[in-house]
Amino acid sequence: MRIAKVRGTVVSTYKEPSLQGVKLLVLQFVDENGELIPGHEVAADMVGAGVDEWVLVSRGSQARHVRDCSDRPIDAAVIAIIDTVTVENRSLYRK
Amino acid sequence: MRIAKVRGTVVSTYKEPSLQGVKLLVLQFVDENGELIPGHEVAADMVGAGVDEWVLVSRGSQARHVRDCSDRPIDAAVIAIIDTVTVENRSLYRK
Amino acid sequence: MRIAKVRGTVVSTYKEPSLQGVKLLVLQFVDENGELIPGHEVAADMVGAGVDEWVLVSRGSQARHVRDCSDRPIDAAVIAIIDTVTVENRSLYRK
Amino acid sequence: MRIAKVRGTVVSTYKEPSLQGVKLLVLQFVDENGELIPGHEVAADMVGAGVDEWVLVSRGSQARHVRDCSDRPIDAAVIAIIDTVTVENRSLYRK
Amino acid sequence: MRIAKVRGTVVSTYKEPSLQGVKLLVLQFVDENGELIPGHEVAADMVGAGVDEWVLVSRGSQARHVRDCSDRPIDAAVIAIIDTVTVENRSLYRK
Repeated sequence: MRIAKVRGTVVSTYKEPSLQGVKLLVLQFVDENGELIPGHEVAADMVGAGVDEWVLVSRGSQARHVRDCSDRPIDAAVIAIIDTVTVENRSLYRK
Repeated sequence: MRIAKVRGTVVSTYKEPSLQGVKLLVLQFVDENGELIPGHEVAADMVGAGVDEWVLVSRGSQARHVRDCSDRPIDAAVIAIIDTVTVENRSLYRK
Repeated sequence: MRIAKVRGTVVSTYKEPSLQGVKLLVLQFVDENGELIPGHEVAADMVGAGVDEWVLVSRGSQARHVRDCSDRPIDAAVIAIIDTVTVENRSLYRK
Repeated sequence: MRIAKVRGTVVSTYKEPSLQGVKLLVLQFVDENGELIPGHEVAADMVGAGVDEWVLVSRGSQARHVRDCSDRPIDAAVIAIIDTVTVENRSLYRK
Repeated sequence: MRIAKVRGTVVSTYKEPSLQGVKLLVLQFVDENGELIPGHEVAADMVGAGVDEWVLVSRGSQARHVRDCSDRPIDAAVIAIIDTVTVENRSLYRK
């Protein structure tokens, strides 16, 4: 999984029918020092994450094991809202 | 998923039989500022996207959950035409 | 999928039994301007592609949906020989 | 698989129900000379690894074959604690 | 698949039970000119490859189709020992 920060949202009217009702978040990955990495990922949000929160993202076919995603063409899902990240006994992030 | 811009098309006569009737789009990914990223991806289009539109691309084996793709050797599919992308309450893209 | 140019072949005598009879091509990916990208990929060829042709490559577990590949440990397959690539209404490649 | 060093932990209260009881480690990959590579990966720990240990990480859908992970949305798992890494008959790491 | 050179081995006592008896090789990928690429991959060896040999590596869930690997958390496997690599009718490698 990767640690990412929620940056925004994507809205689409014309899409695969199975995507109805799926909230899509724009994420940016965070490096080992807590800095944003260039680039983005769009992930399905099943945990109610909000902008600026740090979350855990699962990618690939295992993302389907998120509730109700098994038959959707989703290759990334937010699976947790992060409370704390600790690196070498130092707090990198606290919600 | 990744946000991408439709750049063009690929045409092939001699191909895996299961690819008959599949429209193949040339895409370029878009970075967190809306700029095109070098490189490309070719994806099956099941939503009728056109050149210059921004779309959402799903990659890997989950792409098979797009309609009628389950038994095709397709590792990327356009799953939505994007209406808006909002980052930090700022509009990055509007169709 | 990715657009690639066929550069050569790999030959192996001692291999997984299920790879018997599979032709293995050395490919290099092509960027959005038609230039070769450093690095390579080796893919199973089921469409009879030849050196210097441009082809479409599918990677990951979906590559198994190529004919007769479902039980082989193949993570990349040539699924089409490309006739034309058109980007922004400009021809990037014509066979 | 990749060789990685355990750097820390991630704690989350609000998460996919199937993640209950899964310990999440922050890892950094190690290069061919034993140096840390920028970036991180978060993996489920099923072998009881501790901070600063070198471990083996499996990613993608095969990570599900770790005990009790088959229906969890986990795309990376620590599958072994490394005793030794030997490169060109030279010891790169010894626990 | 990727072309790689066998560089060494990884030994682990404490690991997922399903990894018992699996030989783990440290590999480095080779570029289109035959030079080693920075970084490494660890792969299960089912073909008896030795240090300095060039091999073919399959990654992702298709690696499970190697003999006896279907239920193991292995995301990379050596599937062939390479005899020759030919690029543009020039020999890049001969065993």
